[in-house]
Amino acid sequence: MTPFGKHLDKSAEFLAQTAVMDALKDADVGRCEIGAAYIGSVYQGSLSGQRVLKDLGMTGIPIYNLENACSSGATALSQACLAVAVGQVDTALVVGVEKLSARGSGPLALDTGDPEIEQGLTMPALYAMRTRAYLDKHGGRMDQVVQVTVKNRKHAAKNQYAQFRTLCTVDEVLASRPIADPITLLQMCPNADGAAAVIVSRKPPKSSAREKVRVLSSVVTSGKFSQGFRDLTVPEISIRAARSAYEMAGIGPQDVDLAEVHDAASIAEVIYYEALGFCEPGEGLSLLERGETTIGGRIPVNPSGGLLCRGHPLGATGVAQVVEIMWHLTGQAGERQVEGAKIGLAHCTGGGIWGVDNGACSIHVLGV
Amino acid sequence: MTPFGKHLDKSAEFLAQTAVMDALKDADVGRCEIGAAYIGSVYQGSLSGQRVLKDLGMTGIPIYNLENACSSGATALSQACLAVAVGQVDTALVVGVEKLSARGSGPLALDTGDPEIEQGLTMPALYAMRTRAYLDKHGGRMDQVVQVTVKNRKHAAKNQYAQFRTLCTVDEVLASRPIADPITLLQMCPNADGAAAVIVSRKPPKSSAREKVRVLSSVVTSGKFSQGFRDLTVPEISIRAARSAYEMAGIGPQDVDLAEVHDAASIAEVIYYEALGFCEPGEGLSLLERGETTIGGRIPVNPSGGLLCRGHPLGATGVAQVVEIMWHLTGQAGERQVEGAKIGLAHCTGGGIWGVDNGACSIHVLGV
Repeated sequence: MTPFGKHLDKSAEFLAQTAVMDALKDADVGRCEIGAAYIGSVYQGSLSGQRVLKDLGMTGIPIYNLENACSSGATALSQACLAVAVGQVDTALVVGVEKLSARGSGPLALDTGDPEIEQGLTMPALYAMRTRAYLDKHGGRMDQVVQVTVKNRKHAAKNQYAQFRTLCTVDEVLASRPIADPITLLQMCPNADGAAAVIVSRKPPKSSAREKVRVLSSVVTSGKFSQGFRDLTVPEISIRAARSAYEMAGIGPQDVDLAEVHDAASIAEVIYYEALGFCEPGEGLSLLERGETTIGGRIPVNPSGGLLCRGHPLGATGVAQVVEIMWHLTGQAGERQVEGAKIGLAHCTGGGIWGVDNGACSIHVLGV
Repeated sequence: MTPFGKHLDKSAEFLAQTAVMDALKDADVGRCEIGAAYIGSVYQGSLSGQRVLKDLGMTGIPIYNLENACSSGATALSQACLAVAVGQVDTALVVGVEKLSARGSGPLALDTGDPEIEQGLTMPALYAMRTRAYLDKHGGRMDQVVQVTVKNRKHAAKNQYAQFRTLCTVDEVLASRPIADPITLLQMCPNADGAAAVIVSRKPPKSSAREKVRVLSSVVTSGKFSQGFRDLTVPEISIRAARSAYEMAGIGPQDVDLAEVHDAASIAEVIYYEALGFCEPGEGLSLLERGETTIGGRIPVNPSGGLLCRGHPLGATGVAQVVEIMWHLTGQAGERQVEGAKIGLAHCTGGGIWGVDNGACSIHVLGV
């Protein structure tokens, strides 16, 4: 993957090509061995995959351009997994890419045409409501919620691919610029540019040094974040996707050694601890405070720094999560390595504006 | 499918929903039986499938939004075919939709960000060059080329779903407004709005009256229209896709009873006669003049009226082609029925601006 951040001088195609070449090299797979390519992006326009691959001399194969909001990259991965699993192709390339800086930094950078957004229900406003609903339902304070940011900065400090790598304190997060009360700037993930790529293959790795990471489950679903207006703290689509993913992998949440989850805002990570079964409903802040989700804890979450600190180039995120997990499962995560990790889970979800039933969620479980 | 044309008062979602409800009814399949949905569109924005399905109460299933320029709908179909063929789901919904009128009617309505287009190499200009190259290489006159339009108008006159249903003469086509010499207005397909949907299932049809149309091959590939600057009359990507499609179906071009091909311009249909093997290279105009590709001839092409007369709402076209073929294979095509049709081929291809290696092509062969 490329470092995530503002790449004003690089095109989306260049970023993606860099990730592709790195993935091919890392997997010791030649360009001619790729039987099909699956590209996830949201705002990269028509034929985004062809634009990436033509300059690498890699067209002539089936190219599928997939979109599913923030789950676009993971959706591309899921289609590649199916094609490889059933033998339609032996080896597939998956690319996630987005140059979000090209859309500006205003609240409409993520405009999806929903009238709710134009009337003020932007993503930060939505997460502000979720934050209030969570604290109202379960108790807790903002200085507890923002510890997600503090933890993820600590993780990101050891990740050369992350956008924000400086440490920060609870007070700094709380004192950062108000965005949508009670959300402040450092509680929201930054717009970013970046790309990530993985190779999915049914062939054994060529190099014996290359560990074989298996895809234990690959789930995509649709629906809404919560059940209508009923409960903003219960992300129905993620709960349903998790149930399917655990069933497909034949594991339970207790078997997961690390997870990359969709922390688009600090409160999101807390909500997803519960949705993914890492703790009981209402226990998220306690799990966080006990350090269980910090590297070294029972279930490290977002060792990469997550969306909050690695950054969130929409289409790239789902693939980058899987790259991060692959690095941990193969002992290549350097200073932020989760020791002895055997099973990792990647979760991303998008859309699902409050009251609008138009989201997507994808979960992949990987194991060695 | 919906009628194709200008639907200024209807949203893309409404058009697609109409097609979905008709397809469900026609297949006698309930909404709850749909295991996954595949939506093809080019310009409908993020989460296009979710936007269509949420108001039908059909979210909660995997939804895949696919883009591949003019092959978007066919690409969505191909992914549905794979999922059903291998049993990932029993029954899948495929939707193609586009509201192209929302992008205006100027030459940049199809802007893909290519600098070539901004500098004047629009689709009509490109087809003008292909027309000249074809006539230069093989001989022939414009009054022969435009007979494609005359024939397809004749077909469309009997198709209530077509945008242009009035007959026209060779002289009228030649005398219509010049677009890019030698191309005149009636030699180019119109921008259109519309949607089409099909159900793909591994289950037997419920109603005995419902014929079982099988998918004999489903091919998607990428590449460029022609090999660099070498020959604008030899559409390499379509030739390669056809070879794969015939091989997968275990048939040859002589076995095809009717075809829907990508006649974005009059010359395109002639070029694709040759690419798909319906005649030898250079024999396209002769095949046309002998009436072989007219309904009643040896290999009727575009009985629907094709892109030229049915209209071309990008993402919808690939699915509409398959709907048309299904109607013929099941004897439901009314006055334009190709009698005794057992095997039909749908071909669509997009992108592939001259010199830019970024196109897509998809071919489906259906049989009863």
